[in-house]
Amino acid sequence: MRMYDLIMKKRNGEELSKEEMHWMIQNYVKGEIPDYQMSAFLMAVYFRGMTEAETLTMTLEVAHSGDMVDLSGIEGIKVDKHSTGGVGDKTTLIVAPIVAACGVKVAKMSGRGLGHTGGTVDKLESIPNMRMKIEREEFFSIVNRIGLSVVGQSGNLAPADKKLYALRDVTATVDSIPLIAVSIMSKKLAAGSDCILLDVKTGSGAFMKTLEDSVALAKEMVSIGEQAGKRTVALITDMDLPLGQNIGNSLEVIEAVQTLRGEGPSDLTELCLCLSADMLYLAGKGSPESCRTLAEQSIESGEALRRLAAMVEAQGGDASVIWNPEKFAKAAYQREVLAPREGFVTKMNSEGIGIAACLLGAGRETVDGTIDYRAGMVLKKKTGDYVREGEVLAVLYASHPELFASAEKKYLDSVAIEEKKAKELPLIYARVTKEGTLFY
Amino acid sequence: MRMYDLIMKKRNGEELSKEEMHWMIQNYVKGEIPDYQMSAFLMAVYFRGMTEAETLTMTLEVAHSGDMVDLSGIEGIKVDKHSTGGVGDKTTLIVAPIVAACGVKVAKMSGRGLGHTGGTVDKLESIPNMRMKIEREEFFSIVNRIGLSVVGQSGNLAPADKKLYALRDVTATVDSIPLIAVSIMSKKLAAGSDCILLDVKTGSGAFMKTLEDSVALAKEMVSIGEQAGKRTVALITDMDLPLGQNIGNSLEVIEAVQTLRGEGPSDLTELCLCLSADMLYLAGKGSPESCRTLAEQSIESGEALRRLAAMVEAQGGDASVIWNPEKFAKAAYQREVLAPREGFVTKMNSEGIGIAACLLGAGRETVDGTIDYRAGMVLKKKTGDYVREGEVLAVLYASHPELFASAEKKYLDSVAIEEKKAKELPLIYARVTKEGTLFY
Repeated sequence: MRMYDLIMKKRNGEELSKEEMHWMIQNYVKGEIPDYQMSAFLMAVYFRGMTEAETLTMTLEVAHSGDMVDLSGIEGIKVDKHSTGGVGDKTTLIVAPIVAACGVKVAKMSGRGLGHTGGTVDKLESIPNMRMKIEREEFFSIVNRIGLSVVGQSGNLAPADKKLYALRDVTATVDSIPLIAVSIMSKKLAAGSDCILLDVKTGSGAFMKTLEDSVALAKEMVSIGEQAGKRTVALITDMDLPLGQNIGNSLEVIEAVQTLRGEGPSDLTELCLCLSADMLYLAGKGSPESCRTLAEQSIESGEALRRLAAMVEAQGGDASVIWNPEKFAKAAYQREVLAPREGFVTKMNSEGIGIAACLLGAGRETVDGTIDYRAGMVLKKKTGDYVREGEVLAVLYASHPELFASAEKKYLDSVAIEEKKAKELPLIYARVTKEGTLFY
Repeated sequence: MRMYDLIMKKRNGEELSKEEMHWMIQNYVKGEIPDYQMSAFLMAVYFRGMTEAETLTMTLEVAHSGDMVDLSGIEGIKVDKHSTGGVGDKTTLIVAPIVAACGVKVAKMSGRGLGHTGGTVDKLESIPNMRMKIEREEFFSIVNRIGLSVVGQSGNLAPADKKLYALRDVTATVDSIPLIAVSIMSKKLAAGSDCILLDVKTGSGAFMKTLEDSVALAKEMVSIGEQAGKRTVALITDMDLPLGQNIGNSLEVIEAVQTLRGEGPSDLTELCLCLSADMLYLAGKGSPESCRTLAEQSIESGEALRRLAAMVEAQGGDASVIWNPEKFAKAAYQREVLAPREGFVTKMNSEGIGIAACLLGAGRETVDGTIDYRAGMVLKKKTGDYVREGEVLAVLYASHPELFASAEKKYLDSVAIEEKKAKELPLIYARVTKEGTLFY
């Protein structure tokens, strides 16, 4: 077999066989296929797409390129959740404890943030002494005991994906729906859970800017998951404006705690209840409606918050910040962003706001960059709110006052204030299951 | 400037500016842009194409990536000819002496053959002692004295093209019309002649299999040449069957001599007269019709053949083989291919026949391969001819008798004999000038 022929086949719109896909991924990981051939192949995929069969085969090959995590040491059904990434997205910190409180296991490996989107590992590391590098045996034992554990990715998980993603990142082949589906689902399959809930973000701060693309991606991923023997559902959710009010690592943990106390912002609370309900539904806990009731009860009873605190404690973290979030160290400086005019907030560009948070020190520009856990912002007004001239739009937090100028400018450039109120956007656009797509 | 952004631009169907193209080619040659980014760019070009302006800019940048040959040391107008390559294409050996005999200079750098198509340098090297590596000064002096010299490529001619071509060759991005145009025209512009005649082959043995693609390629190349200040014309000529009767290096020199004696096969003679007429026309020697008469007279008078012999002598070759081609060393073995049935020859797959000649030793499979100058074949029957069962279709020549079996099989697989005569194909399909395209 020659890589040349596989590039040609894809370029001409033909379908690669299972054997060809197997050979290609195996030899790429081994370094026998050079990057310059793989990047030509990936660009051909960008233009030609992949069939459902090809996408499934490639996902399975990429998943099997490294360790396939065996979670059988954890009793019961394990459910995983994946978000395609957004600004202010702290849902894992809320949803995992809710689901665990309702009796379904969450043994989750999470990633770090890069660019304008944050990562759950970074958020949890803002808790003093929190350990995110945890060996397999301890990880299993925590989940068996407490019902959940969220740790950093360890081991050799889908190494083909790492190599492919690094190449796509420098060859303008990231935004191909089948390649995104392969990348996400290969890691989910390798991570070993029984069920997968996908939170596919759509809008200005999301990777997929249009509803059409988001639905297409969700459908491909649900199809891969189901064909690989995992119950899989996807929700298409809004990322046209940031989720909740807080952006930044410890600020987001604080907001997660507020939400688990039943005092969170309505958009974040609603989304977390929907995600939790579907995770419980996937695990066989009943209809989505009755599962939602279970989720609500886990907040009301305080059980979900107790689970988060228990997990933090089990991973060496200082659980007192969960019980008293005001104990989190504060940023040395804060600055109010004032409304330059009167009117309705009609648009918040999430990506721009995410970049503003990065400028304050809350994110990293490169994989080796460092993070200021205290930095970030609290949004006081969001799309749809009315604001008077000079009223506080947001409060910025940083460790160095000279960071405020560029962050404030970026923030103001990302927000539109107009005379007329804009049409309200839904929080959840659609739900994709193997049976079909339901638009709300 | 970042290569990532240029890949993205091309991928999204936008046009690269002059500055961007300049930066890209310069940095690629310097090794600052990795192959994996360039191959993604090339695949994007395969799908998106390039605008006329981009193709021109890229050609000029690739041409200027190395030496721009200055032919001003040669008096008068210099005319170059380029064939996109075919089987049995020995036209340079005939056309260059004709044009020189008519008073127009030909200072030509030629290539070697690879795969099923032969190269002029290899053909001339079948002449004993012939020198193809000739320094600039001697090259100019030969052309000034005799009117022509055909030498191997020397110096640092369009190094960007060498690097790009090697990459395209392994990434399935060779058959992109704008990239082919860039590759051919960059070398032609760097080679320094004033006028360029392009012989664009079409059909089974050609790079361009369809007339439509051949015309599109010809148009792009004529447009580039004219915009770069060179008078340029292209003829679209048939390569659905091999040209002439002889395939193989010394065999093709022999057939060239026969043609210059006025005793060549009609298809080869006719094509050479057309090519010569257009080269003379480009050099301002009159209308294509009157130029054709000049070309015919140069054969009748023997002047064209004398020029070939003089060039061979000037380059150290044994000119006695030009005067007496039977002096060429013969292959040790020969074998007749007999017609397996009665009927009309309806199809000759040139590529297959070229490969059969390679199998006999006449070509090289890799750039480092060696050639048996005596090996090859003489076609006794061509498309349109009637043949009886057992009649000789072709005679194969080789230095080792064990080569015959596979070559004969390949030959027979490439020839169709049927009851009904096939429709005759034209020798010349179209003529492309800056004024437009004339179909014959």
